[in-house]
Amino acid sequence: MFIAKVTGSVVATQKVGSMTGHKLLVVEPYRLEPDQRQSLVTTGRTFIAVDTIGAGENDFVLITQGSSARLTPETKTLPIDAVIIGIVDKVHIDDREVSVDRD
Amino acid sequence: MFIAKVTGSVVATQKVGSMTGHKLLVVEPYRLEPDQRQSLVTTGRTFIAVDTIGAGENDFVLITQGSSARLTPETKTLPIDAVIIGIVDKVHIDDREVSVDRD
Amino acid sequence: MFIAKVTGSVVATQKVGSMTGHKLLVVEPYRLEPDQRQSLVTTGRTFIAVDTIGAGENDFVLITQGSSARLTPETKTLPIDAVIIGIVDKVHIDDREVSVDRD
Amino acid sequence: MFIAKVTGSVVATQKVGSMTGHKLLVVEPYRLEPDQRQSLVTTGRTFIAVDTIGAGENDFVLITQGSSARLTPETKTLPIDAVIIGIVDKVHIDDREVSVDRD
Amino acid sequence: MFIAKVTGSVVATQKVGSMTGHKLLVVEPYRLEPDQRQSLVTTGRTFIAVDTIGAGENDFVLITQGSSARLTPETKTLPIDAVIIGIVDKVHIDDREVSVDRD
Repeated sequence: MFIAKVTGSVVATQKVGSMTGHKLLVVEPYRLEPDQRQSLVTTGRTFIAVDTIGAGENDFVLITQGSSARLTPETKTLPIDAVIIGIVDKVHIDDREVSVDRD
Repeated sequence: MFIAKVTGSVVATQKVGSMTGHKLLVVEPYRLEPDQRQSLVTTGRTFIAVDTIGAGENDFVLITQGSSARLTPETKTLPIDAVIIGIVDKVHIDDREVSVDRD
Repeated sequence: MFIAKVTGSVVATQKVGSMTGHKLLVVEPYRLEPDQRQSLVTTGRTFIAVDTIGAGENDFVLITQGSSARLTPETKTLPIDAVIIGIVDKVHIDDREVSVDRD
Repeated sequence: MFIAKVTGSVVATQKVGSMTGHKLLVVEPYRLEPDQRQSLVTTGRTFIAVDTIGAGENDFVLITQGSSARLTPETKTLPIDAVIIGIVDKVHIDDREVSVDRD
Repeated sequence: MFIAKVTGSVVATQKVGSMTGHKLLVVEPYRLEPDQRQSLVTTGRTFIAVDTIGAGENDFVLITQGSSARLTPETKTLPIDAVIIGIVDKVHIDDREVSVDRD
């Protein structure tokens, strides 16, 4: 899994039938800032993930990729390769708390 | 999933039998332009994806990769690792609409 | 999937039993040359893929990766993660034909 | 698999139900330092993996990614794509021991 | 699949039970040197793969990644994502033999 920030959403009217009603969020993977190691910074990549747990813009979330994205009750039969499995409350790295505030 | 722009198509006459009749499109993954964060820009990568929903050149689409590409009615038994699951109408990032116009 | 050029072959005598008799080709992924967008150029990466359709050196081919590489009649039970699913005859990008000549 | 160092942990209260009670660790993939080839160095990437074997901060561990992350007794039905499968005691490269000390 | 050189080994005492007795080798993916195209060079990456066919240090091997790593008799139920499926004897690229000598 990786930590990502929810930064937006996508609307797609014409789509595979089973995707109807599923929320599609724009997420940007974050990584530890390598020099000070005290904050998370964007990797500059942009992914789209299905949300089933009520994540919203500016939340830091955990993303699962690949076939395991289908291992939640709501996504079992969906043609998706990325799902939000949790909203991140706290991250500790090197015994310090790293901010995941919604700003 | 990721957002990509359909920029072309591929013809392959000699192929695995089950692939007959499936439309193969050239797609280029896009990401958020990192400085202004107001537009999508190409990543410079080139993929081929199966289309089952009528996507066409210049459309922005959602691509699913991996085994989940087989989770649509038309692609269940195909040896494919990328499928178009939706045509993108709107993208909002940082509370702004980001253009996905066909130009 | 991605477009690749077949540039060679591999011989492995000592191998997992089920791999006996399967042709292993060296393939190099290609992408659209980003400035003129009129030709395909190598990505500089080197992969090995199983061929079941008679591809040969200098052919441009379509490669499927991951578990879907096992979705062809000849590869169902093989421990492989890449297979050639088609030989590319024509590629159109931005309404122009992009050369896939065997040179 | 790859070698990674455990550098932290993640707390996510709101999550997919099946994830309750599973320990989520921050892991950073390491690779061989390319010039002297005598130590492991971080790749600068940040992943989150489930731990089922008692790994702790500063341990070097082996990470399995993808659907195989579900091939342990505790993770069979989880929507995860990365799991710790072992704690690394020793690494030998080029006939030399490479340090995996907890420092 | 990709070509890699076996450069070492890993010992992990504390591990998922099913991994007991399986040999874990350090492998470094190689690619074609891009200018002269007459030799293989390391990509600088470091992976760990299970060996079931008797590969040893300095051998060039073929690596399969992902769920297909479980498609060998010995690895069916293992939580692994990389396995050695063959020892490379010969590689031909551009009609020339490329050395895979054990040096």
